[in-house]
Amino acid sequence: MSQTPSTTANRTVGIAILGLGTVGSEVLRLIGVQADALAHRIGGGIEIKGVAVSDASRPREGVDPALLTEDAMSLINRDDVEIVVEVIGGIDYPRELVLAALRAGKSVVTANKALVAAHADELSAAADEAGVDLYFEAAVAAAIPVVGMLRRSLAGDQIQSIAGIVNGTTNYILDAMDTTGADYEEMLAEAMELGYAEADPTADVEGHDAASKAAILASLGFHTRVKYDDVYCEGISKITADDIKAARTAGYAIKLLAICEKLQGEDGRDYVSARVHPALVPREHPLASVSKSYNAIFVEAEAAGSLMFYGNGAGGAPTASAVLGDIVGAARNKVHGGRAPGDSTYANLPVADFGQVLTRYHIDMQVCDRTGVLADLAKIFAENNISMRAVRQEKSGDNARLIVVTHTAREKNLAATVEQLRKCDAVKKVTSVIRLENEDV
Amino acid sequence: MSQTPSTTANRTVGIAILGLGTVGSEVLRLIGVQADALAHRIGGGIEIKGVAVSDASRPREGVDPALLTEDAMSLINRDDVEIVVEVIGGIDYPRELVLAALRAGKSVVTANKALVAAHADELSAAADEAGVDLYFEAAVAAAIPVVGMLRRSLAGDQIQSIAGIVNGTTNYILDAMDTTGADYEEMLAEAMELGYAEADPTADVEGHDAASKAAILASLGFHTRVKYDDVYCEGISKITADDIKAARTAGYAIKLLAICEKLQGEDGRDYVSARVHPALVPREHPLASVSKSYNAIFVEAEAAGSLMFYGNGAGGAPTASAVLGDIVGAARNKVHGGRAPGDSTYANLPVADFGQVLTRYHIDMQVCDRTGVLADLAKIFAENNISMRAVRQEKSGDNARLIVVTHTAREKNLAATVEQLRKCDAVKKVTSVIRLENEDV
Repeated sequence: MSQTPSTTANRTVGIAILGLGTVGSEVLRLIGVQADALAHRIGGGIEIKGVAVSDASRPREGVDPALLTEDAMSLINRDDVEIVVEVIGGIDYPRELVLAALRAGKSVVTANKALVAAHADELSAAADEAGVDLYFEAAVAAAIPVVGMLRRSLAGDQIQSIAGIVNGTTNYILDAMDTTGADYEEMLAEAMELGYAEADPTADVEGHDAASKAAILASLGFHTRVKYDDVYCEGISKITADDIKAARTAGYAIKLLAICEKLQGEDGRDYVSARVHPALVPREHPLASVSKSYNAIFVEAEAAGSLMFYGNGAGGAPTASAVLGDIVGAARNKVHGGRAPGDSTYANLPVADFGQVLTRYHIDMQVCDRTGVLADLAKIFAENNISMRAVRQEKSGDNARLIVVTHTAREKNLAATVEQLRKCDAVKKVTSVIRLENEDV
Repeated sequence: MSQTPSTTANRTVGIAILGLGTVGSEVLRLIGVQADALAHRIGGGIEIKGVAVSDASRPREGVDPALLTEDAMSLINRDDVEIVVEVIGGIDYPRELVLAALRAGKSVVTANKALVAAHADELSAAADEAGVDLYFEAAVAAAIPVVGMLRRSLAGDQIQSIAGIVNGTTNYILDAMDTTGADYEEMLAEAMELGYAEADPTADVEGHDAASKAAILASLGFHTRVKYDDVYCEGISKITADDIKAARTAGYAIKLLAICEKLQGEDGRDYVSARVHPALVPREHPLASVSKSYNAIFVEAEAAGSLMFYGNGAGGAPTASAVLGDIVGAARNKVHGGRAPGDSTYANLPVADFGQVLTRYHIDMQVCDRTGVLADLAKIFAENNISMRAVRQEKSGDNARLIVVTHTAREKNLAATVEQLRKCDAVKKVTSVIRLENEDV
C-alpha cells in the first residue's frame, strides 16, 4: 500500500544544485544511484535540471556536461526548477542566490551555516512571503538530525539547554593532543595533513564555525533570533599541552563546546545565551569521550529530560545525507502540498550579555611561595563574591603553583576576579583560565 | 516575523485524548501550561474537547470533570475533534478506536507500540484512504526521536542496520545485576519496587515490548512491513549472575538488544531481519555504558555513517514529550495543509528466517577433564562450518570449564552446533549460550 495518491505519482520535481564541491558531488551521485528509492519516498520523481559551477568547461567525472552552467541565476529562475540546493559556501554570493530562489517561489535546501547564522531573518521572511520551504539540516553537525529534532520532535517541549561538540576539526586536534601529549601546533599540522583541517584553519580553530552553529541551535531551541554576532566565541589556539595534561590529571578532558541556554539575568528577566569556548568536561561525562572528528549534542528539555545525539559532524557523505533528507522533505511538500515548520521567533527573548552567563573557572597560577599568599588571594575571590570549590597547591621551583576551581558565578565576576589576580603582587603569572562545564555540583 | 499566515492565526484544532494514565495526564497537563507556546509553533490554537476514561465519575486532579467521558467513540466522532490521541494501551480496543478515528478523517497520535507493531498495515491503509496523519513517535523509545529521524532526516539515505537498547526495565535489571553482582530475581524485585517494572513484568522481561519496537524500527528503516510476529524474541529471565560475571571478566556487558538489519540469505537474495535477545556487548562500545533505564539506538546508514541517539526511553514526561511533538505536527497539517510522511513499504523485502541471521555465539560448557576433549569438540564445530575465534579452558572441580567464542556464522549452524554439543558425551553441561554483537572483528 503506497502513501502516494495516484494523481501525483507521475509528478517530477526539478532540482538545481548550486556548487559541485565535496558535498554537491556526493548529493548528485546519491540522487543518481538512489533515484527509485527517493521517488517512492517522495511520491514522485526528482530530476536534476542543472548544476551551477564556477567553471563549466572543466569536465567532472560522472556528471553530464550538459547539466553544468556558470549562470546560477538563470538556472534558479528556470520554470522547471522547484527546489534549489545551495552547497557553495561563503556568505554574500549564496545569500544573493538563495534570496533570489526563495523570492522566485523555489524551496531552498542549504548546508551553509554561516549564511543561516548571519541572515536567517531575511531568508525566513522571503520564504514566508513566497510560502516556500527553507531547509538547513546539514548546516549543523551534518548527518546528526538536530535541526529536525528541535523543529519537529521537540516541538511540544521546552528546551532548557543545548551543549555540544559541533566542530570536528577542533575535536580532532584536542583529542589528538589529549591522546599523544603533543602541543597544539603539532596536532593542527597533523589535522591539516590528514584533511581534518583546511589550509586556512581559522574559521574552525578560532570557533567561528561552531559559533554559527550555536547561533542556529539557540534560535531553534529558544524560538528567538540569535545571530552569529550574538555568540561569544573563543577558539582553541591558546590551549597548551600543559593545559591538557593538567586537565587530565584532574579528571577532565578539554573540549570546544557550543553552549546555548536560557538564563535569568541579574534583573530577574529571562535571557538566552549562546557561547563557544574551550571547557573542562569531567572524564565520565559522555561528551568527554567523543573522539576524533565526531560531533555530539546534548539537549536538556523539560519533559523529555536529557537527550544525546552523536555522529559524523562533517564530511561529504554525512553532509550529503542531511541535504538529501531535506530534499526529500521539500519535494514531498511540492508534490503533496504543505509546508515544513519554518522560522519560529515568537519567544523573542533578549540575548544575555556574556558577563551574565553562569559558569565556573579553573584557574592555574604561579604564586609567591610565602605564608599568607592563600589568604591574600582568598580575599580577592571573596570581594568578588566568588566562592572557591577546590584549591590545590604545588611546589614549583622558587614559586608555588596554585590551582583554584570556583563555584558557579556570573562570568563578569569571574573575569573581574582574574583581572585582580593578575594585578596582585603575590601572583607571578596566571598561567591559564579555562571554564568548567557539565559537572553536577 | 511569524511563520503563521494571518488567515489561519485564529484557527483552533480540537483534540480528543483517549486514556488518562501516566502519559495521558502528563499530555493534558503540558498542553495546559504550554498553550501559548504551542499555539505559536502550530500557527493556531489547540483545544481539548474531551478525555475518554473508563470511569468518568472518578474526579481527577486538575482535570475539568466536564471533559471526561466514558463514551470514547462518540468523542472521536464529534465534529469539532480533528486529532485523536490514543494513550490507552492494549491492542484490540485501541485498534477499534484508532481505526474509527482515521476512517472519520481524524489524524491520530498514538504511543501504542503493540498496536502499531501488530496492525500497521490496516491503520496505514485507513490513514491513506482518509488522507490523514498517523503519528507514533512515542511508540519507540519515548522521547528519543528515532521515528522522525528514520522517516524524515534519513529519508535520503539507505539504512544498513539499527541496533539498540529499547526497553528500560530490562536495562535497569541487567545494569543492576552487573553493578551489584545480584541475581535476576533479586534485581527484578528491586525494579518492581522502584517502579521500573510493572506488577506483571512479562512483556518487558521476555522481550515482547522490545520486539514491538524492533518491528516498527525495521519497517521504517527498510521500507518493508515487519510485524511483531516476524521478530525473533528472547528475554532476559534466564540470564544468571554467573553469566554477568563471566561476561564482565571477558570484557563484555550483557544487554537486551533489538537488532534490525538487511542481510543476504543463503540464496543470495536480500532480506530484512528483526530480533530481540540478550547479547554480549564489548565494554568499550557505547551501548555497554547505557545505564539504568536509559535507552540508546545505533543507526548505520550508507551516507550518514554511524549515528547514536540516547535518552529516556520510558516514563510519563518523556513519552508525553514525544506525543506532544506529534500533536504539534498533526495540528500544523490541519492548519496549514500537507501530510506527514506516512507508511512506506515499497521495498517489500522478505523477512529472513531466524536461522539465516549472522551472529556469533559465546558458549560456556562444563566438559570432562580428559585429554582429547577439545579435539572432539573442535570436530563438532568444524562439521558445522563454525570456526572458533577464542577458546578458554579452566579447571572446575572434577570437570573443566570450556568457553568458546565463535566467528560469525548463520544462526541455524550455530544452533545445530550447540545441539550436538549437548548430546556429546564429553560435554557435561552447556551452561549458557549468549550471542555476541557489536564487536568489530
